[in-house]
Amino acid sequence: MPKYPTHLVKVIENLKKLPGVGSRSAERFAFELLSWPSEQLTQLGNLLQDMPREIQHCHSCGCLINKERCLYCDDSSRDTHTLCVLSSPKEAFAIEDSGAFHGLYHVLGGTLNPLDGRGPESLRISELQKRVQELKVTELILALDATLDGDATALYLKQELEHPELNISRIAFGLPMGSSLEYVDEGTLARALSGRRGF
Amino acid sequence: MPKYPTHLVKVIENLKKLPGVGSRSAERFAFELLSWPSEQLTQLGNLLQDMPREIQHCHSCGCLINKERCLYCDDSSRDTHTLCVLSSPKEAFAIEDSGAFHGLYHVLGGTLNPLDGRGPESLRISELQKRVQELKVTELILALDATLDGDATALYLKQELEHPELNISRIAFGLPMGSSLEYVDEGTLARALSGRRGF
Repeated sequence: MPKYPTHLVKVIENLKKLPGVGSRSAERFAFELLSWPSEQLTQLGNLLQDMPREIQHCHSCGCLINKERCLYCDDSSRDTHTLCVLSSPKEAFAIEDSGAFHGLYHVLGGTLNPLDGRGPESLRISELQKRVQELKVTELILALDATLDGDATALYLKQELEHPELNISRIAFGLPMGSSLEYVDEGTLARALSGRRGF
Repeated sequence: MPKYPTHLVKVIENLKKLPGVGSRSAERFAFELLSWPSEQLTQLGNLLQDMPREIQHCHSCGCLINKERCLYCDDSSRDTHTLCVLSSPKEAFAIEDSGAFHGLYHVLGGTLNPLDGRGPESLRISELQKRVQELKVTELILALDATLDGDATALYLKQELEHPELNISRIAFGLPMGSSLEYVDEGTLARALSGRRGF
């Protein structure tokens, strides 16, 4: 890195911690920020500092709260007998955008990975069990990543929560919309074949 | 954009103002920031807010100052008879990194562009004329972009500053290092040909 002023170096080092931001991008961001009027920098600084206080998680489902109301639990129009299990609150927004789900969510706060020391006790699984009983949930949809960690977590949850009156499913694996067979990897193709449906 | 909490929307809108950052990246950055410990957010917030106060420009050359010292003007080992003209302070770091220049800099603060209302009076040209006289500059190197604006600015400076004892040059245009003729655009090739040198 060139010999930037000390303060600029600190800004760059912090920006480099953002996902996908390397030295070049962080430098570009820092010089852009340098050209911002000071009011705008103050505003962004305040917004960042207020994030932990302003953006909290719902004690019940773990999703984000807006102005002391859970975006989902406090919405009476939603189906409380269907729970969708997610690893992080961000994913709820992606599912909401799809418009294909109208139940409640449950955020685990991660996935199982024994190698990284993330065991079942680090996830919100006992809370999930409690909610399944309290809400009389009839359908549990596991919307977990199509990765090893996601697979392990789904399997573990199925074992823990299995019950004759609870329908547990996992979202489908297959071709993404608009994709062509030619460019899809063999793992996806294998799962798309095994998951084939009557047509 | 999905229905994010109000505060998160504000953070995302601000991050989208960074160069090359669209909605997707801004959302990704915002969720990453949400996972940072609050001390780290406070630190970044403070760093941003302190930028205008901590990072100032040298009154003489327009480059950045580190701890009240100009990185270049206050370095007595530099050749004060050679000036390199830049449009922005960032470029000085790139030239320093090349290790090929040991004179002083002069930052114009932009380039000429009459269509955007940027005329000569918006640039630090009178300061440049004063410095050329005071420092008894013998060589003036115009390190301006290879764009229309850069060309116009270089031409204007040449007309304004032309003097028998002042050697004015512009950095060379040609093939970038490691490039292959096959992939270089015709404009670059034309300039590389007209700028050919004895070998």
